[in-house]
Amino acid sequence: MKTIPFSAVKLGGFWGRRLEINRTATIPTVYDRFTDTGRFEAFRFNWKEGSDLPKPHFFWDSDIAKWIEAAAYSLALHPDKELERIIDDTVELIEKNQQEDGYFNIYFTVVEPGKRFTIRDYHELYCAGHLTEAAVAYYKATGKDKFLKIMCRYIDLIERVFALEHSAEFDTPGHEEIELALIKLWECTGEERYLKLCKYFIDTRGTSEKDKNIPSWAEPEYYQSDIPVREFTFAEGHAVRAMYLYSGMADLAEKTGDKELLDTCERVFENVRNRQMYITGGIGATSSGERFTEDYVLSNDLAYAETCAAIALALFTRRMSGIIPDSKYADVAEIAIYNGSLAGVSLDGRSFFYINPLEINLEDRRRNKEHYYFDKTYAPITQRVEVFDCSCCPPNIARFVASIADFLYSYDDSTVYVHHFAESETEYDGIYIKQQTAYPNEGGVRITVRNMAGKRLAVRIPGWCEFVSLGGEKLNAPVEKGYAYIDIKSNEETLDFWFEMKPRFVCANPKIGYDAGKVCLCRGPLVYCSESVLNDGVRLSDISLDVNGTVGLTFDEEAGVYAAEADAFEDAPSDELYYECAKSERVNRKIRMLPYFAYANHGESDMAVWLRKG
Amino acid sequence: MKTIPFSAVKLGGFWGRRLEINRTATIPTVYDRFTDTGRFEAFRFNWKEGSDLPKPHFFWDSDIAKWIEAAAYSLALHPDKELERIIDDTVELIEKNQQEDGYFNIYFTVVEPGKRFTIRDYHELYCAGHLTEAAVAYYKATGKDKFLKIMCRYIDLIERVFALEHSAEFDTPGHEEIELALIKLWECTGEERYLKLCKYFIDTRGTSEKDKNIPSWAEPEYYQSDIPVREFTFAEGHAVRAMYLYSGMADLAEKTGDKELLDTCERVFENVRNRQMYITGGIGATSSGERFTEDYVLSNDLAYAETCAAIALALFTRRMSGIIPDSKYADVAEIAIYNGSLAGVSLDGRSFFYINPLEINLEDRRRNKEHYYFDKTYAPITQRVEVFDCSCCPPNIARFVASIADFLYSYDDSTVYVHHFAESETEYDGIYIKQQTAYPNEGGVRITVRNMAGKRLAVRIPGWCEFVSLGGEKLNAPVEKGYAYIDIKSNEETLDFWFEMKPRFVCANPKIGYDAGKVCLCRGPLVYCSESVLNDGVRLSDISLDVNGTVGLTFDEEAGVYAAEADAFEDAPSDELYYECAKSERVNRKIRMLPYFAYANHGESDMAVWLRKG
Repeated sequence: MKTIPFSAVKLGGFWGRRLEINRTATIPTVYDRFTDTGRFEAFRFNWKEGSDLPKPHFFWDSDIAKWIEAAAYSLALHPDKELERIIDDTVELIEKNQQEDGYFNIYFTVVEPGKRFTIRDYHELYCAGHLTEAAVAYYKATGKDKFLKIMCRYIDLIERVFALEHSAEFDTPGHEEIELALIKLWECTGEERYLKLCKYFIDTRGTSEKDKNIPSWAEPEYYQSDIPVREFTFAEGHAVRAMYLYSGMADLAEKTGDKELLDTCERVFENVRNRQMYITGGIGATSSGERFTEDYVLSNDLAYAETCAAIALALFTRRMSGIIPDSKYADVAEIAIYNGSLAGVSLDGRSFFYINPLEINLEDRRRNKEHYYFDKTYAPITQRVEVFDCSCCPPNIARFVASIADFLYSYDDSTVYVHHFAESETEYDGIYIKQQTAYPNEGGVRITVRNMAGKRLAVRIPGWCEFVSLGGEKLNAPVEKGYAYIDIKSNEETLDFWFEMKPRFVCANPKIGYDAGKVCLCRGPLVYCSESVLNDGVRLSDISLDVNGTVGLTFDEEAGVYAAEADAFEDAPSDELYYECAKSERVNRKIRMLPYFAYANHGESDMAVWLRKG
Repeated sequence: MKTIPFSAVKLGGFWGRRLEINRTATIPTVYDRFTDTGRFEAFRFNWKEGSDLPKPHFFWDSDIAKWIEAAAYSLALHPDKELERIIDDTVELIEKNQQEDGYFNIYFTVVEPGKRFTIRDYHELYCAGHLTEAAVAYYKATGKDKFLKIMCRYIDLIERVFALEHSAEFDTPGHEEIELALIKLWECTGEERYLKLCKYFIDTRGTSEKDKNIPSWAEPEYYQSDIPVREFTFAEGHAVRAMYLYSGMADLAEKTGDKELLDTCERVFENVRNRQMYITGGIGATSSGERFTEDYVLSNDLAYAETCAAIALALFTRRMSGIIPDSKYADVAEIAIYNGSLAGVSLDGRSFFYINPLEINLEDRRRNKEHYYFDKTYAPITQRVEVFDCSCCPPNIARFVASIADFLYSYDDSTVYVHHFAESETEYDGIYIKQQTAYPNEGGVRITVRNMAGKRLAVRIPGWCEFVSLGGEKLNAPVEKGYAYIDIKSNEETLDFWFEMKPRFVCANPKIGYDAGKVCLCRGPLVYCSESVLNDGVRLSDISLDVNGTVGLTFDEEAGVYAAEADAFEDAPSDELYYECAKSERVNRKIRMLPYFAYANHGESDMAVWLRKG
């Protein structure tokens, strides 16, 4: 199956607006902060010991690379001379500072020049991967191939050192990313060696004694390096690394028809969605290593759930959707997109979360020594900021939003798959599809297709949806693994889908102790949360939701989605620690909620995704 | 007010049986284990560097002292030549090894002989306090005064060093206990200097620069030494130390009419019962220092709630009951006695818990790296054992049970207070009271009094009780602060009280996040808990209680109390992480529960005090 690229899709509605904010606010803000912090300056390779310049960090190449990738995606849809100039200038610097043999890395040239390819933990191949993705994106957006050629030369060196001479002090990257980048480079250049190098890194992973014996700050599991990748049965270790690896594995499995590898991808996916994923699509529950914990260990107030990890989960599941027509992949992608990923950026597009807890209780933090005893950083920040020391998430969300339409469609000779719903118009490779919809706010989707007579349109029925109608009647088309298959007969057809989108009170598997006795309001793909700041400062722990009550919806202009008002109970403040349930006093009230992605846009506040079931 | 001593009370029923188990199983078992581990042998002062003997720990004196105290209490009711011989032999050794100037401490004589009175952390005065309590108890039980005289000589030395010469390297004990022991010694000997020394230690606490500057492993708050004791507004630091101090403060306040000190005792009591106490009466929520956390921070699976701390809370509140006729004190004492304290010993009396969690989830432990990441010892043991390295709790529960009848009555010239209910007969200081009751299993109590014409009987109405009848009619005697005041008119009167004892579903203040959405079954003073081992291995996290259902009661011979069978729901096992509440599948079932004190008597098992509200 092929993907219809984002660059062929004109988005409107919810995503049209997010794209515009991304272009006008997020990409410039990240640029400004990366300039302030010396990340762009670092590409001049001017830093030396004792200089006034900030010391380049070993992952700064990747920060800028992701920003370039985001900017290139934006350029593809919206030409911008100034943006292009910034990228060209940066590419000039990359060219100027590329070493004779093709090597390019700021840190290992100016900070630790003798240490090239010796420290597996230091993101060297990860940076190479992101620069490669950026180069491919910029080439596709502008046709300019200077950056692409630079990266081909560097990748050629990496191939020689790792796959041919085995002369590096490690065999596979400590932080995966280059694997999926090599697939992109191969697709862009047609050079088979890049596919082979991807396969080399994936096949070698977990089999290398060198990798296991090199000093590192965590055990091999953390790096997905304990066993050959085909033996994985569950997701383990650093969440972003894991997801980038699985993405590369999915790509490779598809390109090479490697069924065993694809089965592995399905196994780890099932483990994530059934054991290790927050209801928001956040993954990697603990700050202790930004990693997966164990099945069902999903703390709310101390959730880590890095923005990059939710993005990476979406990227992995997007690949799986394009290989296996099973809606479970797009269902998870949809959750991760609308909740765990999008929460990473403010409504105005200018500030960011790295960590995405599902609960904030400021009073509890003040008094809870036990939780925060070992490391104050365990308590996630409560308001977004513009830049972090480790600022991977801001440019990641920028490139993710800029290319969001990549998620919509895939196709083969006989079938076009509609994985996601968004107001949009597309014309690509002879296919024309228009979606008219207020999604994610309403479940009605009018799909107009042209030039598809004799083909099938496979439309995903969202996992959250109980009742679907087509053309005003209950859907009676064949449904397989969550896709409704519609035979298209004429040159232009209009299909009026209606996915019933009711507010749902969702509970968690009782094995998640943290959510016991609690419920979460969801509607369509959106997970809602409450904030005290939206509810006259009410203490959210005093609130329980009336699951038999009603939920009112009012459109929130700022967030572009419905706010919800749910029937709830508020416990009367009591000075007693314990009292008979039957006698606990509570009053009826409404609780205002916004989708999770929109929280922390109205000032410091308590927040909760899960509230007690009333 | 005076207390009717346990030695004047003949207990039957529930406590009669516990007393018998204590005498025939607990006291001998603790003796055997203290012999095995070299604690008795240590009193020979034979240890030296390089010897084969176990090295005496600095708190071993207190372990044996508490055992002697327990044995003495047992002797008072049940003469036993062999037990008396063991104590006499030990007293001989104490006499033999007491130093010329009165000093007695194993550790600071044989292990660190030069360090007498230099290390505030090393329990020196705590050991002296327990030895003093033991000496007073043995004197009262047998009339033998050798041990008492030994301790008077030692206390005289302590008075000189601390209160007169101020020549120790600290001013007040690191671990309180001697304060309340000095009150006992003063009462027993009539020597005013002991009362004065108690007052000295209490008044000096928190005012001494020496104490604050001496190296220690925790901050002054941990030792209740940060501010003068009269300024305390809440309970803080090591829970047992705090409670022993408050007990001494309450004693001193009563003996000296110190209203300010008594007000302080009331303040810290209110903080404990309304902010920092488990529903079981357990206190000191964290293993990190065996200490109080912050208000409402009461984790269930990682609860510390040391047995000694619940005992100490009971001892403190018993003193308060004897000063201020307010039932809130005996209410808390009752909770702590029947739940948090009694859970510390097995039904057969031979094994012990030091830590008393309110939840055990074995599957969760296996998979939860996050909780147990820093220190494996955080996970409390799940079955009782006979002895610990730090084995303060076993002899403490032994002396506590042996003297439990101390809790029943206090009196002044005009009124006799019945604080607690137990099948018993008492004759003391002209007062005769008989209680015929199946308490704590039934709420009926027939109280027969003699020789009290013209006096009042003040009978506590338990806080858990909603409806009281007297003589078959709704109680209409005046009630003040939880005591019903009955004028006794004739020489012998029989009062048939009936305290309605219904099963109650209790919830926690919503500020305790750990208990959100959960309920606990209670009946009378007993807190119930569920164990998977009593319920065909069911996973307790799958269970929610039907608070509108019925609770069946069947007598459990082994525990001597009712087992409960509650209506509940069991969630169907699901492989899904999240699902709509309305669609969650569950089946009706019964859940068998025993009182908390009886848990862990039927094999390794999951356990939960709090279950989801169904």
